[in-house]
Amino acid sequence: MSTVRVAVVGLGMIGGSVARRLAPHHDVRVWDSDPATRTAADRAGLQVTDDLAGTDVVVVATPLEAMPTVLSGLSTSDGPLVTDVGSVKVPVLAAARAAGLAGRYVGGHPMAGVERSGFAAADPELLAGAVWVLTLEDDTDLAGWLAVAELVTGAGGRVLPTTAAAHDEAQARISGLPHLLATALAVAGGRGGPLAGALAAGSFRDGTRVAGTRPELVAALCDGNRVALARVLDETLAELTSARDALAGDGSVLPLATAGHQARRAWAEAAPAVGVTLDRDTPNLRDDLLALGAAGGSLDAVTSQQLHGRRPDVSGSPGQGRLRP
Amino acid sequence: MSTVRVAVVGLGMIGGSVARRLAPHHDVRVWDSDPATRTAADRAGLQVTDDLAGTDVVVVATPLEAMPTVLSGLSTSDGPLVTDVGSVKVPVLAAARAAGLAGRYVGGHPMAGVERSGFAAADPELLAGAVWVLTLEDDTDLAGWLAVAELVTGAGGRVLPTTAAAHDEAQARISGLPHLLATALAVAGGRGGPLAGALAAGSFRDGTRVAGTRPELVAALCDGNRVALARVLDETLAELTSARDALAGDGSVLPLATAGHQARRAWAEAAPAVGVTLDRDTPNLRDDLLALGAAGGSLDAVTSQQLHGRRPDVSGSPGQGRLRP
Repeated sequence: MSTVRVAVVGLGMIGGSVARRLAPHHDVRVWDSDPATRTAADRAGLQVTDDLAGTDVVVVATPLEAMPTVLSGLSTSDGPLVTDVGSVKVPVLAAARAAGLAGRYVGGHPMAGVERSGFAAADPELLAGAVWVLTLEDDTDLAGWLAVAELVTGAGGRVLPTTAAAHDEAQARISGLPHLLATALAVAGGRGGPLAGALAAGSFRDGTRVAGTRPELVAALCDGNRVALARVLDETLAELTSARDALAGDGSVLPLATAGHQARRAWAEAAPAVGVTLDRDTPNLRDDLLALGAAGGSLDAVTSQQLHGRRPDVSGSPGQGRLRP
Repeated sequence: MSTVRVAVVGLGMIGGSVARRLAPHHDVRVWDSDPATRTAADRAGLQVTDDLAGTDVVVVATPLEAMPTVLSGLSTSDGPLVTDVGSVKVPVLAAARAAGLAGRYVGGHPMAGVERSGFAAADPELLAGAVWVLTLEDDTDLAGWLAVAELVTGAGGRVLPTTAAAHDEAQARISGLPHLLATALAVAGGRGGPLAGALAAGSFRDGTRVAGTRPELVAALCDGNRVALARVLDETLAELTSARDALAGDGSVLPLATAGHQARRAWAEAAPAVGVTLDRDTPNLRDDLLALGAAGGSLDAVTSQQLHGRRPDVSGSPGQGRLRP
């Protein structure tokens, strides 16, 4: 693919990994609010600057709470495409719309671990083969979406198209909830003192692993997705309360154990479509992309003949901040 | 250590592992109610027989629900020491007492995984270095307890002394609860369909791993420990309800995340005493053993000079079912 002028704002583990992943292939500039991080990025060979002029794509990789400020700073009328790497999408989409970026904002979320943090933990290999959500709403510019998708797939990501709302509900189920349950389990184990600690083995170790995540990161990903997570947590509380009542009475947890076993196996055996290409001229491309994501499928590359033959018309003169083909 | 005549009744993963672990060093007989399992054990070179006469130690390794029947079958007045490998101890202790075995019953629980099952999954290495609970009650014969402890440590187990009640509470925290939370998480993820499944990564995979355990085993370990587990689950439901209310309002899960993080780190960094030996002539040996276990410590070997110099007086004429020194 062609060289793209990318700016990465925020150089934590994900932002740093994105920058280092893209730098060998694109014109990458980086910025972080922390001087020590900027120094580290400079020493790692990245081009550190707060001048975003002429950028094709801005990747916002700051903490979630800083994103609205960064997004409103990008709300020029003729600016670049804007994507982000935040773990929740509805609030960031709302901030992007509020900043007048609706059409050229493509919400992004690379599904990579959050246990470590900071530029020192950045690793370009972290993103190799990672599922990378790109949100597609009714008001998203499809050509811009495809351009960001090409950038991501070119960096080895597998693009899963979905809406911000569907992402956040799924995220509550498979990230917020596991983090909450892991912390609750760690607390329950801790209350058992050294005896319980000494008896703890695989099930406790695995079940509490993500409780080792920095509490601020856990709080950010849970609090940031509070509406969807509270709803999912209500479901889970109901399941656990049923199990508790079965135990306190004369019942069995077998129904829950069976349902969980089946769900775990179905998940482990699922084989969503990958490596898909879609004809960009299909009348229902937007719907087809969303159907692909709803089925768990992802694009491994934006490389179909159709796509290559008829590129998105997002070219512009250098310096105007449009995506160069 | 001297050769001990051991009978292992029940040849699932744990019983089979115990038998195969002990067979090279002791006179081991095995039995299982399933003919196919007996055939497999015979082919593995084990001595299959239902004749327990002359046995020093019987290891009951059947499913929990079969233990009362097996124990009552052992209630001869001058029988062998009896231990077991069940994942809960209070109900088995009660069954042993009901069978008149109180003094010579030593509840056992090797802390090894339960994800796989059956004799085919038996592996002598599974128990190498495993923490192995041996219960010590007011009515347990201390000399018999030490003899079982020597057998276990001789096989590479690390003996943690505790009471059945303390074991079961700890077990609820670090095994029953993680299994329930893993199954509830798997169910919640499954309700998110293929999209959630495709986005699921490390936190979901680790958090649901033990949901892959056979549901019958999960139900057995949870239902069998229902009193302690229901109590612990009440605590956890309260924690999660607080988190839910914080999310539904304007609060944060940060307090829970912080508490969980601290508990996880404390657990990971804990270094309970190991390799301990205690003078069997100390006036408070029973209390010292229980204090060791309460602190999470374990005996790596019953090999102190004192113990070797003054062995437990449990010798008897062959065939009478006493432990030979």
